Amino acid sequence: MARDNPIFNQFREHSVAEFFRKNRQMLGFSGKVRSLTTIVHEYVTNSLDACEEAGILPDIGIEIRVVNGDHCVVRASDNGPGIPQKLVGKALGMMLAGTKFHRYMQQRGQQGIGAAGCTMFALITTGTPVKVRTGTGTSKVYSCDLSIDVKTNKPKMLNEKMEEGEMRGLEIEGEFGEVKYDKGEYGPLAYLKRTAIANPHAQIKFKGPNDEEVLFPRASDAIPERPKEVLPHPLGLTTSDLVEMAHHSKDRKISSFLMNNFTRVSSGKIGELRGLLPDVNLNAKPRNLAWADAEKMIDAFSRLRWIAPATDSIRPIGEEQVKKALVNILNPEFMSVRERKPKVFRGGVPFVVETAITYGGNSGRHTQSGVSGDVIRFANRAPLLFDAGGCAITQAVKEMDWNRYGMKEFDSMPITVFVNFVSVHVPYTGAGKQAIANEEEIVGEIKLSVMECARELQSHLRGKVRAGEKEAKKKAIMRYVDQLAKDLVELSGTGDVERLKKKLVKLVEGKYKKKIEDATLEEIAGEAAAAQLEAENSKNEGES
Amino acid sequence: MARDNPIFNQFREHSVAEFFRKNRQMLGFSGKVRSLTTIVHEYVTNSLDACEEAGILPDIGIEIRVVNGDHCVVRASDNGPGIPQKLVGKALGMMLAGTKFHRYMQQRGQQGIGAAGCTMFALITTGTPVKVRTGTGTSKVYSCDLSIDVKTNKPKMLNEKMEEGEMRGLEIEGEFGEVKYDKGEYGPLAYLKRTAIANPHAQIKFKGPNDEEVLFPRASDAIPERPKEVLPHPLGLTTSDLVEMAHHSKDRKISSFLMNNFTRVSSGKIGELRGLLPDVNLNAKPRNLAWADAEKMIDAFSRLRWIAPATDSIRPIGEEQVKKALVNILNPEFMSVRERKPKVFRGGVPFVVETAITYGGNSGRHTQSGVSGDVIRFANRAPLLFDAGGCAITQAVKEMDWNRYGMKEFDSMPITVFVNFVSVHVPYTGAGKQAIANEEEIVGEIKLSVMECARELQSHLRGKVRAGEKEAKKKAIMRYVDQLAKDLVELSGTGDVERLKKKLVKLVEGKYKKKIEDATLEEIAGEAAAAQLEAENSKNEGES
Repeated sequence: MARDNPIFNQFREHSVAEFFRKNRQMLGFSGKVRSLTTIVHEYVTNSLDACEEAGILPDIGIEIRVVNGDHCVVRASDNGPGIPQKLVGKALGMMLAGTKFHRYMQQRGQQGIGAAGCTMFALITTGTPVKVRTGTGTSKVYSCDLSIDVKTNKPKMLNEKMEEGEMRGLEIEGEFGEVKYDKGEYGPLAYLKRTAIANPHAQIKFKGPNDEEVLFPRASDAIPERPKEVLPHPLGLTTSDLVEMAHHSKDRKISSFLMNNFTRVSSGKIGELRGLLPDVNLNAKPRNLAWADAEKMIDAFSRLRWIAPATDSIRPIGEEQVKKALVNILNPEFMSVRERKPKVFRGGVPFVVETAITYGGNSGRHTQSGVSGDVIRFANRAPLLFDAGGCAITQAVKEMDWNRYGMKEFDSMPITVFVNFVSVHVPYTGAGKQAIANEEEIVGEIKLSVMECARELQSHLRGKVRAGEKEAKKKAIMRYVDQLAKDLVELSGTGDVERLKKKLVKLVEGKYKKKIEDATLEEIAGEAAAAQLEAENSKNEGES
Repeated sequence: MARDNPIFNQFREHSVAEFFRKNRQMLGFSGKVRSLTTIVHEYVTNSLDACEEAGILPDIGIEIRVVNGDHCVVRASDNGPGIPQKLVGKALGMMLAGTKFHRYMQQRGQQGIGAAGCTMFALITTGTPVKVRTGTGTSKVYSCDLSIDVKTNKPKMLNEKMEEGEMRGLEIEGEFGEVKYDKGEYGPLAYLKRTAIANPHAQIKFKGPNDEEVLFPRASDAIPERPKEVLPHPLGLTTSDLVEMAHHSKDRKISSFLMNNFTRVSSGKIGELRGLLPDVNLNAKPRNLAWADAEKMIDAFSRLRWIAPATDSIRPIGEEQVKKALVNILNPEFMSVRERKPKVFRGGVPFVVETAITYGGNSGRHTQSGVSGDVIRFANRAPLLFDAGGCAITQAVKEMDWNRYGMKEFDSMPITVFVNFVSVHVPYTGAGKQAIANEEEIVGEIKLSVMECARELQSHLRGKVRAGEKEAKKKAIMRYVDQLAKDLVELSGTGDVERLKKKLVKLVEGKYKKKIEDATLEEIAGEAAAAQLEAENSKNEGES
């Protein structure tokens, strides 16, 4: 036997771009329809994030042209802050580079892969670079043709130009192959429609391959408050996080390191920590923090009482905005919207669940075979169209006992369940960012929130049933009115049948409108007799 | 407004290890039970791959000890070829490095992430390195403590030792946190049981936390033929593949580049290509191949007739082995196994689908609420336990019209559907390698294969129904035998009732066993009468 197996001559290192080139399905590039929607998704979420950071009301344009066969040109533009020249290459042509990955802040994107993934997809399906044009509000406009060196994961720039001009924003145009424009529920237009629901402050213009133009107008001129970048909460930390942050810290003592780098750590808390950890020296240098000590600290954190993490970092859409958007798009007969208090998962990562249920109108999923209950999912306001099966939101809705809310037939009802998961860190199941991992706390919280909405819808549906029953009862009573009027006139030998009938109808419709279900025919007859007496009296009075 | 938005001061680059550290759920490290199974999965598939490459019958050991709380020590050992000292670090402590990623060959692992992912998981959950010991069959044994520098994705080795000793194989022992040992269907033991089903040539020893020992013995001593590394087929290429390979080629002409690097490209085919592509110079240097020419070549490839890709690169388990394994584990009443011919997906990536259906015995999924139809999934013989919802195999089985096969009640029948997907490239949906992407050709082929099995099971079940009906008919006829025997004796005034009865029973059970459903009572009566006559005759003969 050879000293070393010859297989080891084949040992190689690979770049992350090579990995995703070979496993492009992990980025959402699988299937022609999904691939095109993924491109739109990456560009639009980048634009929305950039505008939000810069406090700009977003104006976003998406244009799609079919070139030939399965090639499309996609052009995305925004009025955001633009990208400085020196960062264009890395931001759009290098994977795992960007401003988002390491920040503790609510953002749609968070991985630094998306836009560079599109650049790579253009390269591997058409061999062409994407054209980039950007300005940061100065008098210079930078443009280039940008590609990616897959072997090394480095950007490649061609035809770089810096010209005079006024521009603020970013324009990207690329030709992509193995894509297909689709008008259905998984296509770009459906994606943008959902984006508009969750981002009423954005204006989105879409131009499709057949010259169709769709404008999603801004429903609200209020610039959403910028989500703040926050310090992590001690409860959200793992030992590994703590050790790594400590080892990179320039603070002189562990105590000051804790106070400077985490939220809710006061000098009082440091005192409590010292009490719990007599054998850990909190005056030692953080860069020397040992794993065992860090483990003790994490354990002590969990035994202290903490103020909950600050939630300024989290900006849900807001009840009013959600209502506006849902009315706009679904025009429902009934709607219940809930925004629950912030919770945490994995111990200390704050998140908020916003949910709504709509009923009637365009609610539900309408297909040729009829209507069915629908779930529309969002994470940090970005629509999730794919991978529904593996998503915490779908799981929560599925696991609910709809029967308990009188909606045994959920699957065939005109109901839409809306869920927006908002957090500084969304635990996506894959780099394609289309499903949220089934973390227990997340699934539980979504369930509770959807249940609250379901309860309200239940009351509404009960009301409808009661209204229906009321109507039936009224009709039944009305059938007696004719006879009753005649009988009463005959019995008393006085009065006018038509006049009495009108009076009885008014009685039934008026007095018993609100609580007709409690009234009985006898009562009605009694009232009718009283009315008759009254009529007689008044008549007698008139006659006298 | 500032020249550049201050957000860009936050621009950073990150390593792939950092990416997966933050998104560990993408590697299968989500949930305590799943995380432990993922560790076992990564080590076992690496061992099986290494043994297969080296032509060694695998002896694999997995030992799990619960340390405290949610920490476990996992020890994995094999008798494979071992790893040469200079590659240990990169093979086990660096992501996207290894022998597998770029090779066109059937393997369980294919990404160069798995084992390094485990090293990282040990680090981030317990702060400890993994202990590695390996020998390549020489008189030296190398050992070290290995960790990973997450910031740079580089291996860190401590306590390196080279000692005298005889050893061939690899031992890894690590302490992992945030894990839980579970005996259920998602735990390590269930994983190993399924591994044994699909790898009858492997011996696997398991030692669990409560000193339980389980041995999965080798069911076959035949070393499976080594899958061959093959050249890619022209039909499986994208333009991007072709351009990239050409640009890295040292061949002098495009024509020789094609013949040397792809399967089924003969000089005859080059001639045909020249005919189809008069304006592409096949004598040009491949390193200068332009995208447009490559596109034309890919188009021309699709118009030529090709011999199908070689399938020596693909090694299914084989019908006999599958049967042995299924009998062993499920002990079914009925079993149908199918291995269809190799097919291709994405134009030219060869794959084979092996399927089986078992019925009865331990088939199906047995829970407290009863039994239900079960699907057990494999890719290149590695069990897929998680993410069933998003897997092509599940989809294929779900989409089947079980009703057509008389199995409307599939969901509550003791049926197990076994599917092994075998290919040089498995299109996993995620880096956790637990589900196969829903490629149309793959789903279609799985369906066809499962349908063939289902048809056989249908015949079996029909047979059971018929056998049941036959039995009922026989019982009905038997009820007449008593009476018939008495009547006949009385009518003829001769013969012995008991003796005649026995004869009739024998008649019914014997002569009509095979086709009793075609027999009628009259026929039976006729035969009985004939038997009676015969009896009389023999009696008379005896008396005469």
